[in-house]
Amino acid sequence: MLIVLRADASQADRARVAALIESLGFQAQAIESRQRVAIAVVGNDGRVDGARFSALPGVEEVIHLSRPYRMVAREWRPEPTVIRLPGGRSIGGTELLIVAGPCSVESEQQIFATARAVQAAGATALRAGAFKPRTSPYAFQGLGVPGLALLEAVRRETGLLIVTEAMDEAGLEQVADVADVIQIGARNMQNFALLKRAGRAGKPVLLKRGISATLTDLLLSAEYVLSEGNPDVILCERGIRGFDASTRNLFDVNAIPAVKSLSHLPIMADPSHGTGKRAMVPAVARAAVAAGADGLLIEVHVSPEEALSDGVQSLYPEQFALLMEELRAIAAVIGRRVP
Amino acid sequence: MLIVLRADASQADRARVAALIESLGFQAQAIESRQRVAIAVVGNDGRVDGARFSALPGVEEVIHLSRPYRMVAREWRPEPTVIRLPGGRSIGGTELLIVAGPCSVESEQQIFATARAVQAAGATALRAGAFKPRTSPYAFQGLGVPGLALLEAVRRETGLLIVTEAMDEAGLEQVADVADVIQIGARNMQNFALLKRAGRAGKPVLLKRGISATLTDLLLSAEYVLSEGNPDVILCERGIRGFDASTRNLFDVNAIPAVKSLSHLPIMADPSHGTGKRAMVPAVARAAVAAGADGLLIEVHVSPEEALSDGVQSLYPEQFALLMEELRAIAAVIGRRVP
Amino acid sequence: MLIVLRADASQADRARVAALIESLGFQAQAIESRQRVAIAVVGNDGRVDGARFSALPGVEEVIHLSRPYRMVAREWRPEPTVIRLPGGRSIGGTELLIVAGPCSVESEQQIFATARAVQAAGATALRAGAFKPRTSPYAFQGLGVPGLALLEAVRRETGLLIVTEAMDEAGLEQVADVADVIQIGARNMQNFALLKRAGRAGKPVLLKRGISATLTDLLLSAEYVLSEGNPDVILCERGIRGFDASTRNLFDVNAIPAVKSLSHLPIMADPSHGTGKRAMVPAVARAAVAAGADGLLIEVHVSPEEALSDGVQSLYPEQFALLMEELRAIAAVIGRRVP
Amino acid sequence: MLIVLRADASQADRARVAALIESLGFQAQAIESRQRVAIAVVGNDGRVDGARFSALPGVEEVIHLSRPYRMVAREWRPEPTVIRLPGGRSIGGTELLIVAGPCSVESEQQIFATARAVQAAGATALRAGAFKPRTSPYAFQGLGVPGLALLEAVRRETGLLIVTEAMDEAGLEQVADVADVIQIGARNMQNFALLKRAGRAGKPVLLKRGISATLTDLLLSAEYVLSEGNPDVILCERGIRGFDASTRNLFDVNAIPAVKSLSHLPIMADPSHGTGKRAMVPAVARAAVAAGADGLLIEVHVSPEEALSDGVQSLYPEQFALLMEELRAIAAVIGRRVP
Repeated sequence: MLIVLRADASQADRARVAALIESLGFQAQAIESRQRVAIAVVGNDGRVDGARFSALPGVEEVIHLSRPYRMVAREWRPEPTVIRLPGGRSIGGTELLIVAGPCSVESEQQIFATARAVQAAGATALRAGAFKPRTSPYAFQGLGVPGLALLEAVRRETGLLIVTEAMDEAGLEQVADVADVIQIGARNMQNFALLKRAGRAGKPVLLKRGISATLTDLLLSAEYVLSEGNPDVILCERGIRGFDASTRNLFDVNAIPAVKSLSHLPIMADPSHGTGKRAMVPAVARAAVAAGADGLLIEVHVSPEEALSDGVQSLYPEQFALLMEELRAIAAVIGRRVP
Repeated sequence: MLIVLRADASQADRARVAALIESLGFQAQAIESRQRVAIAVVGNDGRVDGARFSALPGVEEVIHLSRPYRMVAREWRPEPTVIRLPGGRSIGGTELLIVAGPCSVESEQQIFATARAVQAAGATALRAGAFKPRTSPYAFQGLGVPGLALLEAVRRETGLLIVTEAMDEAGLEQVADVADVIQIGARNMQNFALLKRAGRAGKPVLLKRGISATLTDLLLSAEYVLSEGNPDVILCERGIRGFDASTRNLFDVNAIPAVKSLSHLPIMADPSHGTGKRAMVPAVARAAVAAGADGLLIEVHVSPEEALSDGVQSLYPEQFALLMEELRAIAAVIGRRVP
Repeated sequence: MLIVLRADASQADRARVAALIESLGFQAQAIESRQRVAIAVVGNDGRVDGARFSALPGVEEVIHLSRPYRMVAREWRPEPTVIRLPGGRSIGGTELLIVAGPCSVESEQQIFATARAVQAAGATALRAGAFKPRTSPYAFQGLGVPGLALLEAVRRETGLLIVTEAMDEAGLEQVADVADVIQIGARNMQNFALLKRAGRAGKPVLLKRGISATLTDLLLSAEYVLSEGNPDVILCERGIRGFDASTRNLFDVNAIPAVKSLSHLPIMADPSHGTGKRAMVPAVARAAVAAGADGLLIEVHVSPEEALSDGVQSLYPEQFALLMEELRAIAAVIGRRVP
Repeated sequence: MLIVLRADASQADRARVAALIESLGFQAQAIESRQRVAIAVVGNDGRVDGARFSALPGVEEVIHLSRPYRMVAREWRPEPTVIRLPGGRSIGGTELLIVAGPCSVESEQQIFATARAVQAAGATALRAGAFKPRTSPYAFQGLGVPGLALLEAVRRETGLLIVTEAMDEAGLEQVADVADVIQIGARNMQNFALLKRAGRAGKPVLLKRGISATLTDLLLSAEYVLSEGNPDVILCERGIRGFDASTRNLFDVNAIPAVKSLSHLPIMADPSHGTGKRAMVPAVARAAVAAGADGLLIEVHVSPEEALSDGVQSLYPEQFALLMEELRAIAAVIGRRVP
């Protein structure tokens, strides 16, 4: 950590900074440039809270030379984390995890038909929400517990893995009983009570990036889960807040190589929410795989024009099957494999 | 609602849209421009879900002519909502609500000393967190329940109103027992389970805008609270995600007049989080009052250089007292009153 | 165009809007929903200026149902524009245009060595600036006219096409004498005098998206060039302003399919500026090709560690050669061809 | 400047960085933290180009401890710059500069009537464009040279100072002949050829912030003007790109105190473009003055509903007169004066 002093900082200001560094058990090392003086904190392992220094008189800025997170960092674990899933599946290794399905569980007919279609095209997991976080209190909020029961029935019959969202602490217990992977949605990325509970759930967690979260914010949220004892966190880029009205969100493809350089955790991509438009989903799905994503989360619906939510961004099953062919070929180019 | 068709939409596409409109009990009215055709939904009271139409073939765009929220809208209630608080205080009328205090309750000495200082300068409510949502799991997380007990003691002794944050459903019950106003933080603005619980808490709710929330998102979150039966929601602009590193957040002063034109609910401003720098807080606090904010939430600490969180953006008590003088004079210019 | 009236608009307000519509030679058609009234402008071909209506009393909002641009729109020309370049090259058809080279022309040795390296790897055009727009007046500003002479020499000797930037009207004449494609940089995307001059330059124009330009802004800037008589405009996504400090810019991969649905013009991608970090360039270059980009603009330097600008985002020649192999395979998956 | 090495940087990487520092005539000083090593450049006066270091192998990040600009910085000139204008007016001192008028010169009648109205309310300068940068080539582009002649006539008759925009180098000469202050618009903030020409124009320059410019970008553009010999630059905050559709731009009130802490140059505010809606202009104008702006640029039109551009954000003269009363009272609170 480096504490940069203001050009007009006094000797007393400087001494106060040095004293605080030493009181914390570190050494202070001054760096004198022509315009201003900075003081380095030597011996720090990354956990000194810079806020204490920012608040001192004469301090211009506090610069962190170390990462603010630990267990999720590449430095903590140089090799990529491979998370083992039931049925011999995994994510983070050579094989990509393809999770497809409707936004919500709507009915037995709808979920079984969609599940069979995505499985036929090669998906190994089904996504579908029983509990749905909706911006408006007047929008469809999901079937709830009966939805979970339908997902359980799908798995029993098809063998597909189940990925479904938990919206609150009570629901997390119920979801954990059924899901193979517990999804935490973008709006809950900083619901710290939920993250801590997920850290004790004994199931892998799929953590979606908040709509305006920096990568540091995302990794710190993952750190909450790891620090409670659950090492199995899958990150997910799902589009961030943009300023152009032609797409629902702005898919941040840079986040894929950036996360891989910062962390050992696997990262998936959600091109459905990342674009919000069916016609753009295949292009962005291919882009995500080409950029090195470890898996995809794609909305597919047997009849999108009748979907209760997100129909506009859901692929038709035949589009999904075609896309899978392209993804297999692209993954092969960079030494990866799509089932 | 208006459904705009693509230039290449077929007659069948057009008929399908019209049929869906009629199946929902409304009338379809075509508007033919030279470049494309649009179909209006006539008779809609604002609650038709546009997603059903977006997903139909041949549809380019769905345009909402009505607001997606109801009870929070100006149209629902033309006069401003005035929320009554204990001790004859209120927010939303002529008098501004000034809430000041430290980021967190740290100790008996710290909270009493700060409370007395802000009260002496004219604040009528104390802000201080017992439960703190922190981006990093390694940062100070608040004193918890003992912090609430200290806040209760402060109120007993000083008569200051207490504004403090609830982070999760369990904590909300505890906070509701003590607080005069329950704060929902920016990171939880779309924690819908928490919002619903707050809608049944029987206390006014201070809802902070999420870091990248549109005003529609903010108002829909408030609608969650109102639709559970609690009409007493105070909105709060506290800075959004910006791209300039010279401030922590970007205080959106436009939000104040914009919310006032869209909604009857009162809106406060938090210039401490809105800037993140002590030296900028007075300028932005004055701006917020000049723009018509109904109250302020300001961080003040008896010794900011020793604060466990947010010291860098906390005012010294004497700065706060000076600022209050300026705020009184500015409020008077626009017919408002600062205590 | 649709003029939405405020809920409290008077009959007089409504009549005034209708009168203005009719005075412009169109028909007014009312749409009455329960909450508010809207008036459609029937007969408009897309060139009515909505600002006239926005300013009228009682008007809440003006909604454009038609695009604000004409000649660049898909509706104007349904099939993709293929721009013919010297040497039998083209952009917009099956074959991708790969433009590689250093940020700036620095010396004869540097530009010839880099040109030969990128040509050996398969690039068909050289990028390199003689005039450099730099944020700081103290940064290297390019060699100027002698730089252009070196580019001319490179073309003579290698046959590579030359893509280089014009920064102002005077320079545009000089650049047009030498370049095969005239680049207009992101900072000049709305330098309308320069765009108009480029519209009369008789050479294809590569128009980079401004750092915060919407796609509509970008297409309107292209319309400036087309409306002066030059149909050969190549658009370029080069990263937009983001909020995450881990990359220089935020590469907007969504822009590729979005532009293709809105316009017939070809669109390239610049993953070097789009990321700002050498290690991330290959991933994002692959993503852009997978998403359907018509070409790439990539910074390559024979010794990036000695580059006078952008060394940190320039590939080593051997990295570029490897990347070209991957791009060939990915392009083939979607029926495109990399030379 | 501080060069932070990657955790896996080799001794050779470290030696290479040190050697480059010394070859530039500075001293290298190592700072060893537990997680990584950083090397400070000692003796640097702020003009070392960090790009050279970023490009070296093993380098993680280059951190600037000094500002990238010189003459515009507070450190260069601690007291605020007061720019003298004709007629005994000035900006940057106690008195605020109020510039009001229509977006464009439209006709003799319109410009004279508006000029007289704003003068009666207390404005000391008239704003109005003869040359208009418009996003669309089909929008009204201004009257051009005849517009300038009208502005000259207004000044002769009323004594109002004239502020008008130059869009290109040729136009700048013409504008400089007439204007008291030459405006450079947001879209041209990084048109470096224009900035350099403005640096030699012999008139004060009003430089508007680009729609997504950081404050560093803005100050570096001002530095272009100063470094050509013109010390009289007035900065202007006019709203940045936001994500909320309820306003045209996002007025960044933080920029006012932030610029004042970084630079000695005066800063104005443009609440008309900053909001894009007439009803919000007074609130944001008051906020800007309360935050410490040195002047305002406000659109006023005698009949906004007939304006050829920006009518929707133009005040009626009587609204402007009322606003001036409020601004006088608010300015007085912080020791400033509105004429």
